[in-house]
Amino acid sequence: MFVQIKGDCSKEQIGKIQSEARQAGFEQTLVSCGKEIIVINCIGAVDYERKLALQEFFRGLPFVIDVVIATTQFRLTARQAHPEDFAVRLNGVSIGSAEPLVVIAGPCAVESEQQLISCAEAVKAAGARLLRGGAYKPRKSIFAFQGLGEEGLRLLQQAKRQVGLATVTEVISPELVELVAQYADVLQIGTANMGNYPLLEAVGRTNKPVILKRGMAATINEWLLAAEYIVASGNPRVILCARGVRGIDNGYTRFNADLDAIPVVKKLTHHPVIFDPSHPSGKRELVPDIALGAVAVGADGLLIEVHPDPDSALCDGAQSLYPQQFAELMIKVRAVAIAIGRTI
Amino acid sequence: MFVQIKGDCSKEQIGKIQSEARQAGFEQTLVSCGKEIIVINCIGAVDYERKLALQEFFRGLPFVIDVVIATTQFRLTARQAHPEDFAVRLNGVSIGSAEPLVVIAGPCAVESEQQLISCAEAVKAAGARLLRGGAYKPRKSIFAFQGLGEEGLRLLQQAKRQVGLATVTEVISPELVELVAQYADVLQIGTANMGNYPLLEAVGRTNKPVILKRGMAATINEWLLAAEYIVASGNPRVILCARGVRGIDNGYTRFNADLDAIPVVKKLTHHPVIFDPSHPSGKRELVPDIALGAVAVGADGLLIEVHPDPDSALCDGAQSLYPQQFAELMIKVRAVAIAIGRTI
Amino acid sequence: MFVQIKGDCSKEQIGKIQSEARQAGFEQTLVSCGKEIIVINCIGAVDYERKLALQEFFRGLPFVIDVVIATTQFRLTARQAHPEDFAVRLNGVSIGSAEPLVVIAGPCAVESEQQLISCAEAVKAAGARLLRGGAYKPRKSIFAFQGLGEEGLRLLQQAKRQVGLATVTEVISPELVELVAQYADVLQIGTANMGNYPLLEAVGRTNKPVILKRGMAATINEWLLAAEYIVASGNPRVILCARGVRGIDNGYTRFNADLDAIPVVKKLTHHPVIFDPSHPSGKRELVPDIALGAVAVGADGLLIEVHPDPDSALCDGAQSLYPQQFAELMIKVRAVAIAIGRTI
Amino acid sequence: MFVQIKGDCSKEQIGKIQSEARQAGFEQTLVSCGKEIIVINCIGAVDYERKLALQEFFRGLPFVIDVVIATTQFRLTARQAHPEDFAVRLNGVSIGSAEPLVVIAGPCAVESEQQLISCAEAVKAAGARLLRGGAYKPRKSIFAFQGLGEEGLRLLQQAKRQVGLATVTEVISPELVELVAQYADVLQIGTANMGNYPLLEAVGRTNKPVILKRGMAATINEWLLAAEYIVASGNPRVILCARGVRGIDNGYTRFNADLDAIPVVKKLTHHPVIFDPSHPSGKRELVPDIALGAVAVGADGLLIEVHPDPDSALCDGAQSLYPQQFAELMIKVRAVAIAIGRTI
Repeated sequence: MFVQIKGDCSKEQIGKIQSEARQAGFEQTLVSCGKEIIVINCIGAVDYERKLALQEFFRGLPFVIDVVIATTQFRLTARQAHPEDFAVRLNGVSIGSAEPLVVIAGPCAVESEQQLISCAEAVKAAGARLLRGGAYKPRKSIFAFQGLGEEGLRLLQQAKRQVGLATVTEVISPELVELVAQYADVLQIGTANMGNYPLLEAVGRTNKPVILKRGMAATINEWLLAAEYIVASGNPRVILCARGVRGIDNGYTRFNADLDAIPVVKKLTHHPVIFDPSHPSGKRELVPDIALGAVAVGADGLLIEVHPDPDSALCDGAQSLYPQQFAELMIKVRAVAIAIGRTI
Repeated sequence: MFVQIKGDCSKEQIGKIQSEARQAGFEQTLVSCGKEIIVINCIGAVDYERKLALQEFFRGLPFVIDVVIATTQFRLTARQAHPEDFAVRLNGVSIGSAEPLVVIAGPCAVESEQQLISCAEAVKAAGARLLRGGAYKPRKSIFAFQGLGEEGLRLLQQAKRQVGLATVTEVISPELVELVAQYADVLQIGTANMGNYPLLEAVGRTNKPVILKRGMAATINEWLLAAEYIVASGNPRVILCARGVRGIDNGYTRFNADLDAIPVVKKLTHHPVIFDPSHPSGKRELVPDIALGAVAVGADGLLIEVHPDPDSALCDGAQSLYPQQFAELMIKVRAVAIAIGRTI
Repeated sequence: MFVQIKGDCSKEQIGKIQSEARQAGFEQTLVSCGKEIIVINCIGAVDYERKLALQEFFRGLPFVIDVVIATTQFRLTARQAHPEDFAVRLNGVSIGSAEPLVVIAGPCAVESEQQLISCAEAVKAAGARLLRGGAYKPRKSIFAFQGLGEEGLRLLQQAKRQVGLATVTEVISPELVELVAQYADVLQIGTANMGNYPLLEAVGRTNKPVILKRGMAATINEWLLAAEYIVASGNPRVILCARGVRGIDNGYTRFNADLDAIPVVKKLTHHPVIFDPSHPSGKRELVPDIALGAVAVGADGLLIEVHPDPDSALCDGAQSLYPQQFAELMIKVRAVAIAIGRTI
Repeated sequence: MFVQIKGDCSKEQIGKIQSEARQAGFEQTLVSCGKEIIVINCIGAVDYERKLALQEFFRGLPFVIDVVIATTQFRLTARQAHPEDFAVRLNGVSIGSAEPLVVIAGPCAVESEQQLISCAEAVKAAGARLLRGGAYKPRKSIFAFQGLGEEGLRLLQQAKRQVGLATVTEVISPELVELVAQYADVLQIGTANMGNYPLLEAVGRTNKPVILKRGMAATINEWLLAAEYIVASGNPRVILCARGVRGIDNGYTRFNADLDAIPVVKKLTHHPVIFDPSHPSGKRELVPDIALGAVAVGADGLLIEVHPDPDSALCDGAQSLYPQQFAELMIKVRAVAIAIGRTI
């Protein structure tokens, strides 16, 4: 149950809602403060009759705006609890809300200083605002290149200093969270780890923005519930990232591009939603069209693989754009963003 | 095997290719004439060695541009056989090629004269170029409204005369093809009938453009092979229409919007590819975003359900746009089309 | 709403239920007579309050056993309407109910007299009770072998006379139903035609048993609703056949074997449910294990492709069993059937 | 490349193969010793020409039985490398090979001493050979019961001592592996963690058998490659467990029961393959039929949820069998096992 009260309410008024809710049997009462509105999210197994009674009582209080009985399984991430868009801000960039689209680009894996720096310079010149690059790679086969590890993190930090882009990198194990958080600005949870709850809790204990990719066959409810592991662990700065799902196999793409998930999720939650066009496409010739589609359906940003020399990439070369292709794509991304009333 | 020869070749030169191909064991040799290029599609189970030999021989002829050994299961619909885009033209409208996007709109089912005419006027005013409306409805339950039948066809014809829009309507049985073709300008094959081959052959024997929807779980190869049933029956005017596929069920959409199929199919075939955003969305609040996504990924047109009074619709009301919503959407469709270098 | 009354009720008592139901707003009242129980299925959009009132009234009548308000979308095929199993009987064979399992076997396509007769003899000797064989084949490509047509039907009839097995063959178009029904004992609707409603209605107007395959991506509700097209057209003798669905592609099978659909559907409907292990397997080495699984989960029968010379088959050779393999499989089928308390 | 040599070969002969392979460019040469056969698995990116040359050379050696160039992505788990079945043995129980089927049963989550002991006694009496019970539960919502943690492990150990069944429990994080391994006999990796590679490596560093569940949308290749993370980390005792996959949603089951994966995987790998009928079923009325199907298709064992009082279970109560149902099921499991030539 979400109790919306006026933004200028006193601590006592908040406390009044909380104590009444607890008395009615709710176990937790979480407070999110907006400018115009404060929402108190009451969580717990309370029967419907009691909820109705409490709703009526709360509605009678002069400082209460409205009381919504939750209709979704997820609660912390529900837009019902937080009607305004929630923007994740870092280093002068803001992802989500009515802010400009943010494009994150870079190689699948960090391979060398030269590769990373040249890529960072190219994507920055074309308009990317953050640099991506994997240091720990969750590869399907243990015999495949697994990433440079801490050396990769160091190169990312160096690229940040030298080129001036904040960095995004994947973390694949709770033990590594502290280390990765020392080097990177944004932590990424990959598709195979969406249900790795100890990892979600670990990144939830940091203060870094977290990009949470949708599981390869996760329903939207499961995805938002996964995001709640991070939020409930103390970190509300979650950015959702769709990246394709398993579906009809047609042999022509790697995954089914779940572009429709973007407007669906934007209606359900206040968190930013971005899209990775590289993984569903699987091959670079499809990436630009899918990227433009993501912008048109309302994505708050894009996460794109770019490599200075894709043919010699150690990972996902086939789906990585050439820097020149990326620069051309950015021109179109800007045009489509403007067409739907956004900027970049 | 596709033999591309110069567009000004003589009948004798074409005949030379055909007789050599038959001698090598090919069973059929189909000729498609373009301005710059004529393609002779040689079909039959010929072993690879012989194909290579024939390719070499043909390449030695002065009027042969190139010889491509088919690498796809489909052949008549393969872009390898027809490098230039193929536009389907009717009543001054042209669907496909670099032509403007074509928007087809109207009610799911024709219900009454008043409903159809008012809808036709509204969608025409907003920029639609064709009117859709079902007279024969393939409903999941035999107890649901099955369409007005021939009376629906008559109303479509009346709307065409009164409002001046060419019409699109579904045909669900080979016996009905002749009747439907008397009234409608474009025949539509629904998703459940993509594998109804006698029906595909029947519409292939007409001279009407055919919109072929993708089967609910059809691979792209199966879809293009289904199109070949129409083309091989004598009717090349096939327009492919993606409309969502079965996939991850998330309870929030009706089908998974297969927007990624659009650029994939555009690369594989020269036929126009349009998108129906209404069926995958299932609810009208999602339709506009999905429609814009379809334009951005490169669709040649849209097929959208609009109803003057969706709440009382006999079919698919929840996913039908209000006329006002459609008009607002058309403004954005135009903007996105321009952003990617097309018009409407 | 299903009104269950005693099996020895008079016409007047049945009429009483029907007239009360019509007065309450139901549009149709269909009567199914069992030995112990007669069910009157009342169909129509009646609001819930009125249904409750009518339920209470009917329960007060001495000859009424129970009144169930339907909780499923499908009605004619609902077990709620027909608690006892319904067996489809022909030529001394009975499919469904507690009767023995029925195995239907034969080639994918009828190719020649010699092929069909030798196959029929082999499968009969091994214990098959019906002979399958396609005369009209719905092939994905128009350039593939499309079946022998009426000549194939004649060969089936000859095989029936010579070998003494009733025959099953596919019908792919409403126009062909009458012709096919003259030759074959059981009509089959293939997976691609599950949503071909005019065809379902056409076979519903015959008095032949109909095997209705599940659509490649049909939900169970859609499948049972498709069956209702046949039943509502006058033919209750519907046998449901699961045959694999599109799903996770693993490159090792052709479709995902939907064995779990068998117990699900057996609980929802009184119609017999059989399984085709050949199509999901795609290759013969998997067929026997999948077939045994189908028996163990409760299938009422199997539909298996057997070919005297699979390597030269014109269709689906890779998934056809050698006659000797089929004979060995039948021994295991019998053992598993006995293990779960059935016979063959 | 798999080099199969005679089982009585000397160390020198093995060394000869290894050094030649390394000289040809292979990076790793792993040796698996069987009674009749020793297989040396040569891993590395060597071009095909060189493989053919080496194959020919090895085939000329008198002690070489055969040389197979790998045709699958997975290598350590490939049956090509290990033609004989591989049985995982513990506490007198043997899972896999031609040994009897092994049934593992118990509650979804360990809830209390009384619940666990009574359940353990019931399943042992009915014929289960191992006790399952979750102490760390990977729940979709952070607000759901997360398991008793170490207290749950202690109760499992107590149940083992008191009732005499070896125990299986899930581990969800690399940090927990050491602790869980102190208490439990078999470690389980859940479906959401199939791609949690640091966890797979952690259990690969123990000497405990590991049950690896298939990811919810994992292809069979991905699943076997995941198993290789465990094997390559030093632990060959991997038991694969199918448990349903995402697929057609029909609202009647929780996941699509991937029974067909059992015979497919049994042909591809020598590792044991068991089945969990509880999760795909989602409701207990379907569990017995699905369980029998799994036995019939060739599963080496079953993993079944049983609860003394399912209606008050803290997790997955709806799909848990009553002890009496489990006992009845075991009688049928035995009958089907015998029917296909196995025992229990």
